[in-house]
Amino acid sequence: MDIQAIIDDISTALRPRLGEGSVASYIPQLAKVDPKQLGIAITTVEGETFVSGDADIAFSIQSVSKVFTLTLALGKAGETIWKRVGREPSGSAFNSIVQLEQEHGVPRNPFINAGAIVVTDMVLSGHQPREAIGEILRFLRYLADDETISIDEAVAASEQETGYRNRALANFMRGFGNLEHPVDHVLGVYFHQCALSMTCRQLARAGLFLANHGRDAMTGHSVVSPRRARRINALMLTCGHYDGSGDFAYHVGLPGKSGVGGGIMAIAPGKASIAVWSPGLNKVGNSLLGAEALEMLAARTGWSVFGA
Amino acid sequence: MDIQAIIDDISTALRPRLGEGSVASYIPQLAKVDPKQLGIAITTVEGETFVSGDADIAFSIQSVSKVFTLTLALGKAGETIWKRVGREPSGSAFNSIVQLEQEHGVPRNPFINAGAIVVTDMVLSGHQPREAIGEILRFLRYLADDETISIDEAVAASEQETGYRNRALANFMRGFGNLEHPVDHVLGVYFHQCALSMTCRQLARAGLFLANHGRDAMTGHSVVSPRRARRINALMLTCGHYDGSGDFAYHVGLPGKSGVGGGIMAIAPGKASIAVWSPGLNKVGNSLLGAEALEMLAARTGWSVFGA
Amino acid sequence: MDIQAIIDDISTALRPRLGEGSVASYIPQLAKVDPKQLGIAITTVEGETFVSGDADIAFSIQSVSKVFTLTLALGKAGETIWKRVGREPSGSAFNSIVQLEQEHGVPRNPFINAGAIVVTDMVLSGHQPREAIGEILRFLRYLADDETISIDEAVAASEQETGYRNRALANFMRGFGNLEHPVDHVLGVYFHQCALSMTCRQLARAGLFLANHGRDAMTGHSVVSPRRARRINALMLTCGHYDGSGDFAYHVGLPGKSGVGGGIMAIAPGKASIAVWSPGLNKVGNSLLGAEALEMLAARTGWSVFGA
Amino acid sequence: MDIQAIIDDISTALRPRLGEGSVASYIPQLAKVDPKQLGIAITTVEGETFVSGDADIAFSIQSVSKVFTLTLALGKAGETIWKRVGREPSGSAFNSIVQLEQEHGVPRNPFINAGAIVVTDMVLSGHQPREAIGEILRFLRYLADDETISIDEAVAASEQETGYRNRALANFMRGFGNLEHPVDHVLGVYFHQCALSMTCRQLARAGLFLANHGRDAMTGHSVVSPRRARRINALMLTCGHYDGSGDFAYHVGLPGKSGVGGGIMAIAPGKASIAVWSPGLNKVGNSLLGAEALEMLAARTGWSVFGA
Repeated sequence: MDIQAIIDDISTALRPRLGEGSVASYIPQLAKVDPKQLGIAITTVEGETFVSGDADIAFSIQSVSKVFTLTLALGKAGETIWKRVGREPSGSAFNSIVQLEQEHGVPRNPFINAGAIVVTDMVLSGHQPREAIGEILRFLRYLADDETISIDEAVAASEQETGYRNRALANFMRGFGNLEHPVDHVLGVYFHQCALSMTCRQLARAGLFLANHGRDAMTGHSVVSPRRARRINALMLTCGHYDGSGDFAYHVGLPGKSGVGGGIMAIAPGKASIAVWSPGLNKVGNSLLGAEALEMLAARTGWSVFGA
Repeated sequence: MDIQAIIDDISTALRPRLGEGSVASYIPQLAKVDPKQLGIAITTVEGETFVSGDADIAFSIQSVSKVFTLTLALGKAGETIWKRVGREPSGSAFNSIVQLEQEHGVPRNPFINAGAIVVTDMVLSGHQPREAIGEILRFLRYLADDETISIDEAVAASEQETGYRNRALANFMRGFGNLEHPVDHVLGVYFHQCALSMTCRQLARAGLFLANHGRDAMTGHSVVSPRRARRINALMLTCGHYDGSGDFAYHVGLPGKSGVGGGIMAIAPGKASIAVWSPGLNKVGNSLLGAEALEMLAARTGWSVFGA
Repeated sequence: MDIQAIIDDISTALRPRLGEGSVASYIPQLAKVDPKQLGIAITTVEGETFVSGDADIAFSIQSVSKVFTLTLALGKAGETIWKRVGREPSGSAFNSIVQLEQEHGVPRNPFINAGAIVVTDMVLSGHQPREAIGEILRFLRYLADDETISIDEAVAASEQETGYRNRALANFMRGFGNLEHPVDHVLGVYFHQCALSMTCRQLARAGLFLANHGRDAMTGHSVVSPRRARRINALMLTCGHYDGSGDFAYHVGLPGKSGVGGGIMAIAPGKASIAVWSPGLNKVGNSLLGAEALEMLAARTGWSVFGA
Repeated sequence: MDIQAIIDDISTALRPRLGEGSVASYIPQLAKVDPKQLGIAITTVEGETFVSGDADIAFSIQSVSKVFTLTLALGKAGETIWKRVGREPSGSAFNSIVQLEQEHGVPRNPFINAGAIVVTDMVLSGHQPREAIGEILRFLRYLADDETISIDEAVAASEQETGYRNRALANFMRGFGNLEHPVDHVLGVYFHQCALSMTCRQLARAGLFLANHGRDAMTGHSVVSPRRARRINALMLTCGHYDGSGDFAYHVGLPGKSGVGGGIMAIAPGKASIAVWSPGLNKVGNSLLGAEALEMLAARTGWSVFGA
């Protein structure tokens, strides 16, 4: 299978549609990004990397970071984390607060904002925000094997200033006793992890362990157990695209996690880690062309987990 | 891999726990079933069948039938069905009406009751209830290659008498114009399809096409296209267990559909179709030991779609 | 105070606006009514009657009937009825089902559809629908002292055919065990009570007991105790206009009950019973000009319960 | 009518039940209050004052303050305030956030927490928090004609530290653009107004204008227009007791506003202003014995707005 040809075909096919969808506007820094970009990167479990389009331009990974902080939290607290956050699709928007009230401050899953804020609280675990931010950054650099990965402070500051909804969610959960640290500490870390700036190449590389039974296929390092890798993949498939998760599974058939920066990381278990990026979003907040690129990729490669 | 040994081990391991969970009580006929039963059947894409425990005792497949009526509706109306029913996990109970009001009579997915009722309306498509029931029954007999499959009229009558909630859902959707046939016709068919009586052996056989790219691995008949098989599997994974779908994906990692009769059909794409049955339900209405059996099976076989 | 002059002024002032709002369209029979009509009738506790405009044209009183069936149910079962229906404003539309699910089949108050259906079930209390309908009709004729009051069978039949939402509500509550009689019996009575056809003159007369401490000011008959009259008035004020009850209290300041036929009955305790009718509805389903007429009336008479 | 005898009777009748209900626990300072207290004060439009029980012990008026800040906001912005807050009963708890999400940041009414926070934002209107707090305090001293009224800084500080839910509400609304000032400023004022410390005697005196067509019956000063007084009374009746407003209207029949400190201010339009206080709360957060005292008072005096 000629992966390079496949992703080049996809890039070419989608090029005329660059700019479709709408760039996230509620974070001022993100609203400035040129929407006419599309990058694709694939890292296989054999250690090969394929890129196409704007795969080496850094973007704000936003909620894709939730997969990595979940991995960290599971490493710290294991399966006990599920006392404080659920594992079910939410059936509502990424920043909905309704469910939180009905379920007494326990978010539905770790990939909606409320759930990720709880996970961030777990990663803090008694440390200062600065240390936790450092730990997350080091973890991503380690996974991507790339020390140049950084956090975009302008994006983090932009979210700090405008993140009223996230501040509402955090205070709400704190009121239910489901945050242990001060709201400002938790959100400080949360906004910084969302502001991680990475390229498709780096992101595909960072997710490789999830495609390879928990083990970094290049270094041979074990990041998580095979079972945990499967479980994180399962969560991405059922909950990774907010209220568009069912649709993504239907059309693409791969575990994936999207971010409002336009990035999506997808995992073909046993085969490859994939990152796509295009800033224009569909109406549920996922990259419109990114999802289409993944649908085409899954169709061409037969990588859908639901059958070739 | 010795599948027979694996499922015998599982049967043996779970035998001491027979009777855990609670048998569905809201359908009087189901409440009479002896809870201390467990059956497992597997049909592989190579055409082999393995059974263990009570795999040849017929039970009421209930909501497992929703997979087959969805398949029929897709065959009749194709992708246009998605104008009348969604593809997203619901985030609420199998018989919730809240979402229906908020989303103007369009159910979240075809595997919650409201969605399956709309699908049944599509299967009716102008016919009399008797004909539609006949068509569904013939389809199951064809898929399972077994003319002895029947509908338990006592169960169907029991649901007719007590199915107030389903009658509420149907009238509600009819009020929104999302049912084309009279409510009594649609529910008549719906209650009969739920009352299909099948053994694990028959059910595993009937699902084989979903494990084999849409084609019956034994007869070679094409039931649906490979893409449609993938999509049905995707829907089962994200929506097949009501508000326990995320949990099932997390623990089992296979597309599956449960019924309150205690049956679960699960698909290992490219490998096998599986049916388990044990009447005791967990608190979200899925077979407690059935789900555990599948978790053990996935762990032993490495069949999880999320990685071995 | 020259009541006749006041209501004539109001009629004249509103005449140019006749036709504003939209006539209820979901009941075909109601959609046929000429919207350019406005009637006002007032019966004082001194026994005087004043009418203006179309006060002698019969209209479908629809939900205004809920006040009278509540009175009947309280007479039969007393304060025990509050085990099956609440006394709080609903904060949602007249036919919402969301609250019913969250509160396990107990409607918020007797003036939303679900609550009135439960009240109708109480009025049935073991009788056949025909008898209950007869009892309700006799009660209205007695209160209005007018044997010509009748039920519009065409309207009742129209609702029977199209009342899917009410059928959903009734089945839903029956599923929770909050209806004792068959759904068809309860709805049969419910649709007939809504189809009561009365003029403003008759309706104002029928409500007189509520303005006069529970006693018919003309005949001297005691209909309910003074305390019960106060309590029914209180329910009308807090719950009488669905999700527009707060607004009605704010602008008019009188206990009142509206119907989608365009009628409103309002009570000035210790002073008068008032009926207005104009078919055009505002967006929450209450008579637009009827509410305006009452606001003008309250302003001119100083009858608001909240201070002159 | 011997008002003094009536309230002494009520005090005596309720004395054996002192301590029923539960003292608000979520504000640590309030949890310390001795629950075995009951005070009643009445100021009539003729200028007479009657007190009984613990009517001269200061308590935290909490949400009763919302009536006064609403009066201030109406004075500043008039009826334009209704663009930012509704006038309908909420049908949910005093601190619910669900409705806010569904209605895009516009609270249901000015007497639930979210609505009062918006009203406080209006009172701020460009000023510093200190000035707004001063204005509110001066307004209460003016209305009660008592310069000794103060704010309990310990209570205000206690709420600042623990008010996560209110902070969530405020951030949520700010995210929808429905707060103009910084969240910390608005909440600073809000927590201080809730911490107003007043006696029943002072509170009854402060509410007198609402019983007397907007005019202070003792000084003759016009506080608001008669129409505005009626409208504030209407809001108290439909929305003044959170999700117990219907029940309060049913049993008491007077406009009233409760606070979690155990105080209730009630208005008998054209007759008297009433304040009761007893710290034990019922399950919807209103003073249990306070409400009972008012029910007895209304029954004895015939002051119910719904008829004698």
